Amino acid sequence: MSSLLEQLIEAFRILPGVGQKTAQRMAYHVLEREREGGRRLAAVLADAVERVGHCERCRDFSEAPVCATCASQARDRHQLCVVESPADRLAIEQATGYRGLYFVLQGRLSPLDGIGPREIGLDRLAQRLAEGEVHELIVATNPTVEGEATAHYLAQIARQHSVRPSRLAHGVPLGGELEYVDRGTLSHAFGSRSEME
Amino acid sequence: MSSLLEQLIEAFRILPGVGQKTAQRMAYHVLEREREGGRRLAAVLADAVERVGHCERCRDFSEAPVCATCASQARDRHQLCVVESPADRLAIEQATGYRGLYFVLQGRLSPLDGIGPREIGLDRLAQRLAEGEVHELIVATNPTVEGEATAHYLAQIARQHSVRPSRLAHGVPLGGELEYVDRGTLSHAFGSRSEME
Ligand SMILES: [Zn+2]
Ligand SMILES: [Zn+2]
Repeated sequence: MSSLLEQLIEAFRILPGVGQKTAQRMAYHVLEREREGGRRLAAVLADAVERVGHCERCRDFSEAPVCATCASQARDRHQLCVVESPADRLAIEQATGYRGLYFVLQGRLSPLDGIGPREIGLDRLAQRLAEGEVHELIVATNPTVEGEATAHYLAQIARQHSVRPSRLAHGVPLGGELEYVDRGTLSHAFGSRSEME
Repeated sequence: MSSLLEQLIEAFRILPGVGQKTAQRMAYHVLEREREGGRRLAAVLADAVERVGHCERCRDFSEAPVCATCASQARDRHQLCVVESPADRLAIEQATGYRGLYFVLQGRLSPLDGIGPREIGLDRLAQRLAEGEVHELIVATNPTVEGEATAHYLAQIARQHSVRPSRLAHGVPLGGELEYVDRGTLSHAFGSRSEME
């Protein structure tokens, strides 16, 4: 049976980019200097993995059935911005003055991995567009091969429902991940998005 | 009141080297792909911060009053290796064939920060040397200014109790941290440690 310290080091390795050495440093750091913070992390983490689910409107993370953004009366219901991940959504929300709503794919089209339209919620998105409230679909997938393919698919769905598709202006570096673009660039790209042909 | 997700991101920031972006990635990663691992991390972390204390013999982390190494009958009680931190102790244990005991300072002499001999347990170390069981004191502090000053102090205490002080061979890079030395170098340096004059 391994010691609690060994178990703790092992447990930290579930975190992204955390190998054996980093996990050791984390365990030692918490035990040496951050017991109170460690206690709090343990409590919040236990609570979050049980209670954070997905918003039934936008698929973003949410504790409630409908997230605060989707429930807000202050957001513009005519604009819907589609992103691949919650991190991308957060990046846009923090960098731009966007006041519309979001739709989080939680992935992108990737037929080779068995990820088709259903897996990223496009049936639900189509339903939503059919309701007629959305006028503009802002496509903010990542500028990767799969992201671009997803963007074209999204534009098709939009047009089928007479919704105007638009996409972020070039400025986001090709092959890059939206999440890592600096705020200024992202804000500019978001502001000068163009209609999709 | 911030959302559970925001609280989780904030809580991850207690970890060393984890800023806002990394904390976000950790939270999203756990919620997207590692709920079971997150549950386990929360449980082990909560347990560890309550139950992991310090060994009363060597000051290393331990759930029991005396750690497994100090309690072991298989270790050579005539050799005592002094290190600054539990991470250094672990590095030596994993890299070398050392079968003696350890003493973990949990710091180093740093008069400007108010860290004197008592704060790093040197009174207890002196007591231990006075018991007469230890024949060789292997000084494995880091090759930094404060680590060197601590090493000289340790050598003095050893001599006062007629214990032979030794130190790791040169080979550990100057100004570096023991914890990051590759195994081969560390093993070689440990093997060719020399008596301190
Ligand atoms: Zn929502
Ligand atoms: Zn011990």
